[in-house]
Amino acid sequence: MTHHCTKFSGHWKIIVWDEECFQGRRHEFTSAPGHPSWAPWVGYEHSAYQGQQFVLERGEYPRWDAWSGSNAYHIERMTSFRPIACANHRESRMSIYERENFLGRKGELSDDYPSLQAMGWCNNEVGSFRVQSGAWVCYQYPGYRGFQYIVECDRHSGEYKHWREWGSHAQTFQVQSIRRIQQ
Amino acid sequence: MTHHCTKFSGHWKIIVWDEECFQGRRHEFTSAPGHPSWAPWVGYEHSAYQGQQFVLERGEYPRWDAWSGSNAYHIERMTSFRPIACANHRESRMSIYERENFLGRKGELSDDYPSLQAMGWCNNEVGSFRVQSGAWVCYQYPGYRGFQYIVECDRHSGEYKHWREWGSHAQTFQVQSIRRIQQ
Repeated sequence: MTHHCTKFSGHWKIIVWDEECFQGRRHEFTSAPGHPSWAPWVGYEHSAYQGQQFVLERGEYPRWDAWSGSNAYHIERMTSFRPIACANHRESRMSIYERENFLGRKGELSDDYPSLQAMGWCNNEVGSFRVQSGAWVCYQYPGYRGFQYIVECDRHSGEYKHWREWGSHAQTFQVQSIRRIQQ
Repeated sequence: MTHHCTKFSGHWKIIVWDEECFQGRRHEFTSAPGHPSWAPWVGYEHSAYQGQQFVLERGEYPRWDAWSGSNAYHIERMTSFRPIACANHRESRMSIYERENFLGRKGELSDDYPSLQAMGWCNNEVGSFRVQSGAWVCYQYPGYRGFQYIVECDRHSGEYKHWREWGSHAQTFQVQSIRRIQQ
């Protein structure tokens, strides 16, 4: 399956193809009108927004290696999609906690962090997240690689107390880079 | 081969292991002292800084899928490394051009761009780069995925006139996301 995200008369759409390199059957999905901030999408491995998560910002994704974060197992087709509600880029705010249930050391994020450790975070894990504003994508490895976990202020009341709540496919708290999802 | 980047008595080092998950023989490489801005490294597929390029910011990379940008072919071992000289995060500046040799439409970058198209760039290619300040990593796909190309103001006089000069492994001008390499 291949994808192309584009803007269309004020709202955003995603066009998907059954086969690689924009071949095969073509389908269009459009976000609800009246939500100009809905630019990026998230695609899921399974139906009903389950399984591995993939951020899809505007652009072309000709095959699986364009959306998968070089994970240990390949997802050649996504099965469900939804648009992501982002905040204004400069107003995104999130707190990260050393331990689950918002315990332990706390960090405040308002920028992109390709290496949490380089920014002073003490280890390669995050125990819990509280999203005050915007939508973020957290990655297993530095440099925005590995499994992706989307966390949003509009879902779960912005509270992610344990890796089970952000759907960690590594089944660990390992998170080494975090960035805002841009409109 | 696995990697771990850490800070050590004022300068930065990279520790590499022969085998996955920090097993096997261990080697340490240290950046020249007196360069506190030298935090991240770049690893290469081949010796003498040739072949696929991988940005290594501070953190843990237990196996190939942690550093490879989910490319079509896996690089299980890197063969050469060098530290990257970054600018202050807020002072990074780069111009991108629609066509090779700094021709065509021009864009000015001073931030991170997970989707150049979402930021107003007209297509999925960049013809040439001129780096005024800092070090940047350009990616084949949106969201910092696919082949990685490191461009720096301290190399090539900051001028990259054609994809051959930034070592495009796609052998095309395809670049859909760009970010600063952070200290």
